[in-house]
Amino acid sequence: MAQRVRVHCFNVSKDGIGAGEGQSLERPFGELDPGGLFAWVGGTASWVWNKGCDGTRGLDDYIVRDFTRAIGAEIMGRNKFGPVRGPWLDHEWQGWWGDEPPFHTPVFVLTHHTRPSITLSDTTFHFLDATPQVALEQAKAAAGGLDVRIGGGVTTIREFLAADLIDEMHIAVAPHELGRGLHLWDSPDELTDRFHLERVPRPSGFVHHFFWRR
Amino acid sequence: MAQRVRVHCFNVSKDGIGAGEGQSLERPFGELDPGGLFAWVGGTASWVWNKGCDGTRGLDDYIVRDFTRAIGAEIMGRNKFGPVRGPWLDHEWQGWWGDEPPFHTPVFVLTHHTRPSITLSDTTFHFLDATPQVALEQAKAAAGGLDVRIGGGVTTIREFLAADLIDEMHIAVAPHELGRGLHLWDSPDELTDRFHLERVPRPSGFVHHFFWRR
Repeated sequence: MAQRVRVHCFNVSKDGIGAGEGQSLERPFGELDPGGLFAWVGGTASWVWNKGCDGTRGLDDYIVRDFTRAIGAEIMGRNKFGPVRGPWLDHEWQGWWGDEPPFHTPVFVLTHHTRPSITLSDTTFHFLDATPQVALEQAKAAAGGLDVRIGGGVTTIREFLAADLIDEMHIAVAPHELGRGLHLWDSPDELTDRFHLERVPRPSGFVHHFFWRR
Repeated sequence: MAQRVRVHCFNVSKDGIGAGEGQSLERPFGELDPGGLFAWVGGTASWVWNKGCDGTRGLDDYIVRDFTRAIGAEIMGRNKFGPVRGPWLDHEWQGWWGDEPPFHTPVFVLTHHTRPSITLSDTTFHFLDATPQVALEQAKAAAGGLDVRIGGGVTTIREFLAADLIDEMHIAVAPHELGRGLHLWDSPDELTDRFHLERVPRPSGFVHHFFWRR
């Protein structure tokens, strides 16, 4: 099957907000408390931060499991790596993801300020000052025939949507509004000219949105 | 994560029937026309017999994708390999699955009449006269740390349920009754003493049933 470009397990509020302003080292999501947006995922057995084997194995877990399936590379915005803006001041700090990042593939971090690559366990972060098109070419080449995940955040997904480079997306929409922050969309229906959209509401109030190219 | 024993994408009618009587070379499901039971799966992009890249990529496709994910071996009943009863008369005939079976792992076929193993592409069929427990031990050892799928049919899944060897099941229940054939259950609620059960109804009328061990 052809190599695909996918978004998985990306979470937004009912009003389309995926992150807050005012990101800092202590608050990767800025003013926004991400707990509410991640509520659907935290109880699942396959959630990467869910140590041990507890957790549900129903529908939500199927979706979480697919996060890593057949993924050969990720592309993320700089803000998903760390909160620093402008030139890197401290190369010692190696991002938010700890010694064993949950990616297990090459990760391409889009930034105007490049720095040497960092390998942590089986994840290597490469820093790239490039357009979405060029970044995607490199990620596809590094993915060994597997798919490329566009990891976010909001701004990065919007850029890849604007460039029409995404084949498939799973977005979980939370039952509550946030009012303030970075918007992925005003409404998911904005995308239905280019994508099929299937909505799967859950008893939790979350609604899974599955998009795939028309 | 511990090695698990899973059933995936197994389909039954509303009254719990998964296969008909009177199986033959031409009719793997016997009197029963399996088209109706497989209707939910046929339109998905990841369905193994769906050549090319067409097909939906919504929720049903997520479930189909998981069929092969992290599976290292399958156990099936003899009737899923072929319709012959009693001693094998013709070793030339290599089962229903063609030159490229969709399993891509070792497959253990339970039968009272063993025969030499058969390798077709990246699937090897082993023929085993053994209890579910012993078959599972061998399949687990062959799975290289990955999960073992119990592939069916109805009788085999019932045997593994009776021996309490299954950790997780996905069963798709069709919207129509069949009245006659081999029953997986009288009602899925029979299993809720041992399993969590989550039902996810679909617009097609199918209801996905996800079971996982309490």
